[in-house]
Amino acid sequence: MKLKLSLLALLCSAGSVMAESAPKNIIYMIGDGMGPAYTTAYRYFKDDPNTKVVDPTVFDTILRGMAHTYPDDHTYVTDSAAGATALSSGHKSYNGAIAVDTDKKPVKTMLEVAKERGMTTALVATSQINHATPASFASHNESRRNYDEIANDYIDNKIAGKLPVDLMLGGGTKYYVREDRNLVEEFKAAGYQYSDDFAAMNDLKQVPALGLFAEVGLPFALDENPTRLTQMTTKALDLLDGQNDKGFFVMIEGSQIDWCGHANDIACAMGEMDDFAKSIEQAKAYVDKNPDTLLVITADHSTGGLTLGAHGQYKWETDVIKGVKATAGTITKDLLESDDLKAVWQKYSDIEFTDANSIKLSEAKKMGEKALLLAVKDIINHASFTGWTTGGHTAIDVQVFAYGKRAEDFYGSQNNTAIADKLIDFIKQ
Amino acid sequence: MKLKLSLLALLCSAGSVMAESAPKNIIYMIGDGMGPAYTTAYRYFKDDPNTKVVDPTVFDTILRGMAHTYPDDHTYVTDSAAGATALSSGHKSYNGAIAVDTDKKPVKTMLEVAKERGMTTALVATSQINHATPASFASHNESRRNYDEIANDYIDNKIAGKLPVDLMLGGGTKYYVREDRNLVEEFKAAGYQYSDDFAAMNDLKQVPALGLFAEVGLPFALDENPTRLTQMTTKALDLLDGQNDKGFFVMIEGSQIDWCGHANDIACAMGEMDDFAKSIEQAKAYVDKNPDTLLVITADHSTGGLTLGAHGQYKWETDVIKGVKATAGTITKDLLESDDLKAVWQKYSDIEFTDANSIKLSEAKKMGEKALLLAVKDIINHASFTGWTTGGHTAIDVQVFAYGKRAEDFYGSQNNTAIADKLIDFIKQ
Repeated sequence: MKLKLSLLALLCSAGSVMAESAPKNIIYMIGDGMGPAYTTAYRYFKDDPNTKVVDPTVFDTILRGMAHTYPDDHTYVTDSAAGATALSSGHKSYNGAIAVDTDKKPVKTMLEVAKERGMTTALVATSQINHATPASFASHNESRRNYDEIANDYIDNKIAGKLPVDLMLGGGTKYYVREDRNLVEEFKAAGYQYSDDFAAMNDLKQVPALGLFAEVGLPFALDENPTRLTQMTTKALDLLDGQNDKGFFVMIEGSQIDWCGHANDIACAMGEMDDFAKSIEQAKAYVDKNPDTLLVITADHSTGGLTLGAHGQYKWETDVIKGVKATAGTITKDLLESDDLKAVWQKYSDIEFTDANSIKLSEAKKMGEKALLLAVKDIINHASFTGWTTGGHTAIDVQVFAYGKRAEDFYGSQNNTAIADKLIDFIKQ
Repeated sequence: MKLKLSLLALLCSAGSVMAESAPKNIIYMIGDGMGPAYTTAYRYFKDDPNTKVVDPTVFDTILRGMAHTYPDDHTYVTDSAAGATALSSGHKSYNGAIAVDTDKKPVKTMLEVAKERGMTTALVATSQINHATPASFASHNESRRNYDEIANDYIDNKIAGKLPVDLMLGGGTKYYVREDRNLVEEFKAAGYQYSDDFAAMNDLKQVPALGLFAEVGLPFALDENPTRLTQMTTKALDLLDGQNDKGFFVMIEGSQIDWCGHANDIACAMGEMDDFAKSIEQAKAYVDKNPDTLLVITADHSTGGLTLGAHGQYKWETDVIKGVKATAGTITKDLLESDDLKAVWQKYSDIEFTDANSIKLSEAKKMGEKALLLAVKDIINHASFTGWTTGGHTAIDVQVFAYGKRAEDFYGSQNNTAIADKLIDFIKQ
């Protein structure tokens, strides 16, 4: 009986070991600035107040744990560069560091390890593709501000004799076509397909490919194309699917959740969250079809000190936010150009154009664009009971979501570097 | 071979079913107002800036998931009564509801189910023991404000012919010894040991017992006894241990995390978090000795819109907070009573008594206690880069922690009612 039980234990554990092989493909999605207030906000923003039940979001279906985001300097509040360096390499560093350690020495990133192993590699972002988060996967620099040097890295730093990134979709022509150097021509010469026309993105038929769809970042989802990240995600997964037996690594960033947070613009933030959530739906569908794929989603930090409820009121008015049809920046520009403030306001917002709001906007307009922008946001934030404490970042832990092969490895509370360590370990297997 | 594999599958799954029996004892801890910013803050507050590594807290070792806290009215922001009703009964209700539904009809609580099943039941809190959270486990009322009626319920509402709660430790003599009724005498007549002296708490030798250690809530941890909840937790587990074959259910509330949050007093909040964390350590130790026990910890909501980092600064100054030796209320009272503002300030805070701070406090003092209190908090919040957006609650998801038997049932994102449903299911088994 003892032998039989030992055999049973062995066979049972063999079953679990068999399930423990590493995923072939890795889809790593980063919601820049997407702290837990943003995923909560998105659930209530999407809720239909006419039904009793609040439906769960895609985030709710795949929550695994939370991550600690502090940088290596005891300030506790990270920037996107140090955050992305931790998430790409497993090394904490100083704020501003692009895949370098506190001695400013390069640290190897998971994209570089993937490239060494012969996997196909890709970066997708709604920011310029050489912005801090994607930059920390495929370049090394002592400062995130050195945008030209970072763009150069994408073609100069060879990994195993090849360019580091096989597919890039995002913005950034300003940094690629310069007086001193035309990187687009260099990528073309290296065999890359190229497009700078989002509407013609489907002209990209294979990797290697480079798509730069804006001078810097793409327009905000709320202002122009509400699904531009979703479309780039779909395109990237189409191009990456099945073309390399060794699999692929792709990092997809919802870059502008953070930008809306810095601006303290809640409608802008919900537009970005919606595009990011729909991108995650695409990635989940890919995993369903390709179960040897792992999808991991997290954030680098939270931005703005967003709170749902403010000024002592026990409510958060989602209808107000749903009724805002453009970012505060766009509303402000139109208000500046028009003599009919009421008409512009009612074009963009369901919030009543009261005498108080009329006076507030008129007075602010006299003081210029900056004051008017603040007034526009103040009216929206007060009407929706949305709170903010900063134009910068905060230190709150962020969530970790995972789906597919080895998703269960991301349960619990963990350092952000541990996420990178696990993924690098999978890539090395 | 097919048969053998089927047998193996059966045996392996039988092994997992065997592990799935319900826990005998349940320790349910609620950090009132303890949103994710508070647990993150506590990690960095406890960190030694002189070491490179930021040590994990007790929370970090047992994080399982997060919970949605919205009440049943599409405001999305819950109060403690609706939150506790969801956590005690599995029913969402309106803000203010004490274990009643939206029709104001009583809903059965897990403590009542435990009592029906013959388990020993207990409530521990640093608030008055008839405050919203404990009240929602053992009484039913259309309003949390009806403190006298709630206290009456603890002796009037019999469950299976017995009083609902066998052990109560907290504050609240004001509501128990009244002109119209002396509940303390009634509890004594019903066989309860009684103490109103915290220092003599160990005179309580067995259940049933009632300990009321303050007129309303106990003093803040930072002002008087930094471990009063820890000591009550230890005492409760001592009294409950091994005295009933059917096990026990205890709800232990860190009540005043919320109160410090309402006050936007960060040093106060960290004092409460420390006492709550130490109480959790005691509960974890009990589970280690009694592995048939389940420990579940969550919050009803977050309070104050706390953020770590504020006003565009990428830092949170824990040394400033560690240097504050009393709550802002206590500092204010002493400043009001003294002519030497500098001496009082330096007694309670390491923050420099600059000319600016001197003028700020002097001017505020002239305007009275309320203005002075705001000035004290403003200096501390600014010096530490702590942000707040409200004197009320916010809607952000809260964390769910679990340890011991069936802890793995609490992984992932869940409604707060689902926590109650699972615990009630365990109690019924």
